[in-house]
Amino acid sequence: MNVLLVFAHPEPLSLNGALKNIAIDELQKVGHSVMVSDLYEMNFKAVADKNDFLELNNSDKLNYIKEQYFANKNGTFVEEIKLEQEKIQKADFILFQFPMWWSDPPAILKGWFDRVLSYGFSYGPGVYDQGNLKGKKTMLSITTGGDDFSDYGDFGIKGKMEDLLFNVQHEKLYFTGLDVIEPFIMPSGSDDEKRNEYISEYRNRLRTLETLPVIPFRPLSDYENGQLKTVSNV
Amino acid sequence: MNVLLVFAHPEPLSLNGALKNIAIDELQKVGHSVMVSDLYEMNFKAVADKNDFLELNNSDKLNYIKEQYFANKNGTFVEEIKLEQEKIQKADFILFQFPMWWSDPPAILKGWFDRVLSYGFSYGPGVYDQGNLKGKKTMLSITTGGDDFSDYGDFGIKGKMEDLLFNVQHEKLYFTGLDVIEPFIMPSGSDDEKRNEYISEYRNRLRTLETLPVIPFRPLSDYENGQLKTVSNV
Repeated sequence: MNVLLVFAHPEPLSLNGALKNIAIDELQKVGHSVMVSDLYEMNFKAVADKNDFLELNNSDKLNYIKEQYFANKNGTFVEEIKLEQEKIQKADFILFQFPMWWSDPPAILKGWFDRVLSYGFSYGPGVYDQGNLKGKKTMLSITTGGDDFSDYGDFGIKGKMEDLLFNVQHEKLYFTGLDVIEPFIMPSGSDDEKRNEYISEYRNRLRTLETLPVIPFRPLSDYENGQLKTVSNV
Repeated sequence: MNVLLVFAHPEPLSLNGALKNIAIDELQKVGHSVMVSDLYEMNFKAVADKNDFLELNNSDKLNYIKEQYFANKNGTFVEEIKLEQEKIQKADFILFQFPMWWSDPPAILKGWFDRVLSYGFSYGPGVYDQGNLKGKKTMLSITTGGDDFSDYGDFGIKGKMEDLLFNVQHEKLYFTGLDVIEPFIMPSGSDDEKRNEYISEYRNRLRTLETLPVIPFRPLSDYENGQLKTVSNV
């Protein structure tokens, strides 16, 4: 497989940096080809604005989504965005490595979603399982603060991890048609023993990436006008 | 009251820009003082990195949160961050105006959370209702895509709006001790009649900001080791 690894952490020597290197190592060992988008190293621009387009369809009033549509049609994205989109097109699998900051990806990665996964490119007219990246897979590898998951779950103060990740996994990744694999999540404060266990589990996952189960999000056909069909209206 | 309005949209002539102007207008009319952080106009830096600090506690390996702690203690944040923190300290109420992009705030606003609401300043050691911004209030004013809320709710494909907003309202704003008012949410594709109704509702809210009900998030004391106490262990 061609794997695109999108990495969003400012420190190469961090746990996130280590997990990035482990991923490259394991993926190459089993014969995958790895492209890396190290967003901090690339000095990736996070902010979506009019400078993302070589020309504007309407320069009097910026409608960012509409400009994405025209840029996609006319090939007028700036080079930085074009290059990321080319990597995505080439990729069979997109792996994300980032720390949870404020229960969400760092701003530099949010900017990657805002700018790269544009209307007309990754979705539109199709969305969710009809999105344009259909057929490709993705997985999050993330670190959380603290040394365990005691804040999470049905009765945890932060709620269920899958709910916190819904905005990324369902509303961004699955929205573009990607099949989303269960995330790998590691508390950054794990002690050495726990840390080795997590890393060993992660290495195993990376070796078997192609066969890992996909999160069973519902297909678009289960909904009508945005609402789940009931037995009575099927 | 002193109100800080944080605005995150690239186009002043957009619906978001109009709502920002309406807020300034109404708030001033009823006698509040309004500070505006127009993040796009300020060319606000979204990306958290080592350049956010005038000096580093450990320049060999960046631990962003730890550097925030030291910068807060030593007054060594860069000017841009200091100014935002001064505005927050002066504010009784923080109002956010932004569009939902990918079910989340634009990257430029995520960057404001990452960089400005630093450890030691907005939280730490206290969190949630013990956070350092306790006593201040906040509210989101946001726009969604589409022309109605048909994608939302218990059986909507995007789920409940309050769940989508949990990451911002509970995990960011309430985490710092802020009292969070119910959000004002307007579909950007509303027709003229609906649009006028929404704007009229928004003006009413702005006039009565001080008396609007706060979302009843649970106090930290309801939890033990991150988990909700049950009757049996209270």
